[in-house]
Amino acid sequence: MTRWYEDIAIDEPFPLGSHTFSQDEIIRFATLYDPQYFHIDPQAARHSHFGGLIASGWHTVSVGHRKMVDALFAEENRLREEGLEPGVSGPSPGVNSMEFKVPVRPGDTVTYELVVTDKRASNSIPGWGLLFNRLTALNQRGELVYRAEIVGFSKRRDYRMPTKLRLLQALTKVPVIGALLQRGT
Amino acid sequence: MTRWYEDIAIDEPFPLGSHTFSQDEIIRFATLYDPQYFHIDPQAARHSHFGGLIASGWHTVSVGHRKMVDALFAEENRLREEGLEPGVSGPSPGVNSMEFKVPVRPGDTVTYELVVTDKRASNSIPGWGLLFNRLTALNQRGELVYRAEIVGFSKRRDYRMPTKLRLLQALTKVPVIGALLQRGT
Repeated sequence: MTRWYEDIAIDEPFPLGSHTFSQDEIIRFATLYDPQYFHIDPQAARHSHFGGLIASGWHTVSVGHRKMVDALFAEENRLREEGLEPGVSGPSPGVNSMEFKVPVRPGDTVTYELVVTDKRASNSIPGWGLLFNRLTALNQRGELVYRAEIVGFSKRRDYRMPTKLRLLQALTKVPVIGALLQRGT
Repeated sequence: MTRWYEDIAIDEPFPLGSHTFSQDEIIRFATLYDPQYFHIDPQAARHSHFGGLIASGWHTVSVGHRKMVDALFAEENRLREEGLEPGVSGPSPGVNSMEFKVPVRPGDTVTYELVVTDKRASNSIPGWGLLFNRLTALNQRGELVYRAEIVGFSKRRDYRMPTKLRLLQALTKVPVIGALLQRGT
């Protein structure tokens, strides 16, 4: 979320929009990353236990990630247009669980939604908060396609950095010292 | 694993091979699925807290999946050449955890390995076993790039299907009834 850690509401649904999966793009993704016959060969896929071509789970996940990034950019623009300074979201340290339910077939429209189910200050990275996000993806019949519990970072607005850390951060901006410090991370 | 459930050894490392990530492919994947500046803009990425361009985590994961599929195909061919009938691996019901550690940078070579850490007969799908796989990815310096706990299905060779289920399976092969039954899954 491109909101400050403090501004993020628990359990407020954040719609990420929809995507319709074409047969061509299903085959294109799977040819590169998941070339199993039920992802790349519409004829052979009829005889699989899915009864037809289905999208690779990683394709569904990657499109969901794209929708999330797009929604964060849109939220950032909206805040700037209102004259507000957007927050800063950081990289994801990981995923706690991911379930693939109903497969995605050519022509299916998948709607993604993000909800922050919990948050807390980070113990390891000062100035940042941890967000526990639940991403859900439903098809046009309202069936659950997949659900993931994703951990994310968000910057804390009201955090005051201790002097020692401020000094360290200033040092990372000195070219030679910065390179040395980054090598250590 | 393209081995029968019964033949899968616990804690035996299964090497999946390596992949070198070029800057072009990092940018290509991220442009489609993760267009954050530190994944698509080498100049701007220098000023991110990563200090340079890094691959999207989903790119690293997707390439790892491709390596796994390739390794399964190779194992299948090897078994056939030895005159053995390969087992059947099924779709993944999900991922139990996924941790992103050291980022992947252009030119990095990532080596993937799969280990089955546990297995048990499936309660929900007769004739299949559940595999608990750990996928690890290390870069050329031996640093952990990511680690995932992935659940998979593998067919049981010594399973005898009850008559009622054999009848149901036969019915799915009758066109009209099959379509009706599949609509219900």
